[in-house]
Amino acid sequence: MLFLGKEEIEKLTDPQEMMDQIEEAYRIFGADEYYMPPRPVIEHENKTLIYMPCYTKSIIGTKMLTIFPENAKLGLPSIDGLVILNDQVTGAPLAVLDGQAVTAWRTGAVGGVGMRHLSRKDAHTVGIVGAGMQGFYQAVYACAARDIKTVYIWNRTKKDLTDYIERLKKTIDNPAVEVVQCNTVEELVKASDIICTTTAATTPVLPDDKELLEGKCIIAIGSYTPEMREIPDAVWDLVDNVYIELPYACEESGDLSVPLAEGRLTMDKVVLMDKFLASDADEDEIAKKTTYFKSVGMGLFDVCVAQKLLEKAKER
Amino acid sequence: MLFLGKEEIEKLTDPQEMMDQIEEAYRIFGADEYYMPPRPVIEHENKTLIYMPCYTKSIIGTKMLTIFPENAKLGLPSIDGLVILNDQVTGAPLAVLDGQAVTAWRTGAVGGVGMRHLSRKDAHTVGIVGAGMQGFYQAVYACAARDIKTVYIWNRTKKDLTDYIERLKKTIDNPAVEVVQCNTVEELVKASDIICTTTAATTPVLPDDKELLEGKCIIAIGSYTPEMREIPDAVWDLVDNVYIELPYACEESGDLSVPLAEGRLTMDKVVLMDKFLASDADEDEIAKKTTYFKSVGMGLFDVCVAQKLLEKAKER
Repeated sequence: MLFLGKEEIEKLTDPQEMMDQIEEAYRIFGADEYYMPPRPVIEHENKTLIYMPCYTKSIIGTKMLTIFPENAKLGLPSIDGLVILNDQVTGAPLAVLDGQAVTAWRTGAVGGVGMRHLSRKDAHTVGIVGAGMQGFYQAVYACAARDIKTVYIWNRTKKDLTDYIERLKKTIDNPAVEVVQCNTVEELVKASDIICTTTAATTPVLPDDKELLEGKCIIAIGSYTPEMREIPDAVWDLVDNVYIELPYACEESGDLSVPLAEGRLTMDKVVLMDKFLASDADEDEIAKKTTYFKSVGMGLFDVCVAQKLLEKAKER
Repeated sequence: MLFLGKEEIEKLTDPQEMMDQIEEAYRIFGADEYYMPPRPVIEHENKTLIYMPCYTKSIIGTKMLTIFPENAKLGLPSIDGLVILNDQVTGAPLAVLDGQAVTAWRTGAVGGVGMRHLSRKDAHTVGIVGAGMQGFYQAVYACAARDIKTVYIWNRTKKDLTDYIERLKKTIDNPAVEVVQCNTVEELVKASDIICTTTAATTPVLPDDKELLEGKCIIAIGSYTPEMREIPDAVWDLVDNVYIELPYACEESGDLSVPLAEGRLTMDKVVLMDKFLASDADEDEIAKKTTYFKSVGMGLFDVCVAQKLLEKAKER
């Protein structure tokens, strides 16, 4: 059995391959070649364990998350975890992977696939709203999905991003890419072809301004509970469709459930990403207008990404 | 994070320490210092995943089992698994242990604790019914719990036990202990002070003979579903009590549920092991008569044993 920690996973990860693997996961999803039951949640004294099992035709995976909100007081992330892979035929444990690393790289890759298909091919700028772990990986994948010249970053709190930007430059590993901190979110939106929101906000973080948002490719990663919001109402005047991963997202994310309840969004505008990728839609044409991809993630992505990492580790 | 495989676990395991740790687990159980919720079971195409979470005051553990009945066709055990330990305060993953090894050593230790407290101090012989993995470890722990001179083994199928007996001698690692294969179960029962049943039988494997069974210490490890039986009715004419780990066993094990339904056993005869261990019962007096311990196991044991193994691994 293999154990893959953060460092090994970072070494094994190639953003193009990871995005290809996410597209393979969409294919599996579309072909219904998976079984992903409701996830068991165990809670005791505000310490939560979540088991996220997923069977595909070639592997069985479980993402096991711990959610310990009190960690914030210790300056630690509240969410940690592992991904466990089992042999599809015998059930034998094959590998255990660091869950934070798998989650970070797969969420980056999911955003990256959104950018690959919903942003203009000549997009050269990306704006990251929220300088956290997720923002970091969205920036990395943006640079893999498009020929990015400048990454703009804005964070709600005025924390010093010097170290963060240094680490980001190192991971992007392309001297042609500049990383610039913005003073306002308006400045960021104005300058960016692609905008990634990666916050824990409960009210919209982007300006509610049609003119500013028009023509952008918006990749929304936060808002993974009904109470969370990132995206302003103006977006609904601009987009023909919202692209999502699975119908469940419409309940899970406040950025979908609230506009649906208010009638700003109707279900006929909601497009499942796997269907879009399998279609012969004219992506260049679509990307000329404002586009909006809302991600909440799913266990199938984690399992497929972890499987790819295991394959690559075994090749070495 | 540590990964402990079969070999490491074997090296780290000291039977006396493991039995002490099982007694500590009984103390935790008796003091209600744990949280062990119903275990989520996921099933798809006859491939079952079971997550067995357990919180104590000092650790959080999950035993994750895979049950793949089709493995029998491949000559593989149908049950495999892992034990995952998480930090009690932060939830951070601390260790992943081979589940087969933890299960084998902890079940051996649970039987061993039964022998420690329910067999005569001068017991020198043990009879193992069922030459499988569990039988193996019951024999090892019998030799740790009492000054055993001879281990008798009987198996329903007449398979060649030469290798099995060689491996067992090597693990017991005491030249004073003989290991002898019996031709009949009657022969085994007659010769043994302690009898351990470790089979998957659905009808009693011991002879239904009061005279043969009188005065023995019976440790029953099989019968972990309502359909399974190992222990004959004659036992109920001989014993004052049956010792069990937790009330749930009365539903789980056919060796308890059937005699309860038939009225051969009444609940006033059922003694919880943690209460017995915490009491000042005269064990020498009790062990003079026929005694009967029925184990079905619990996640708390796995977690406590895995925690001990992690501690020992860190000491090295």
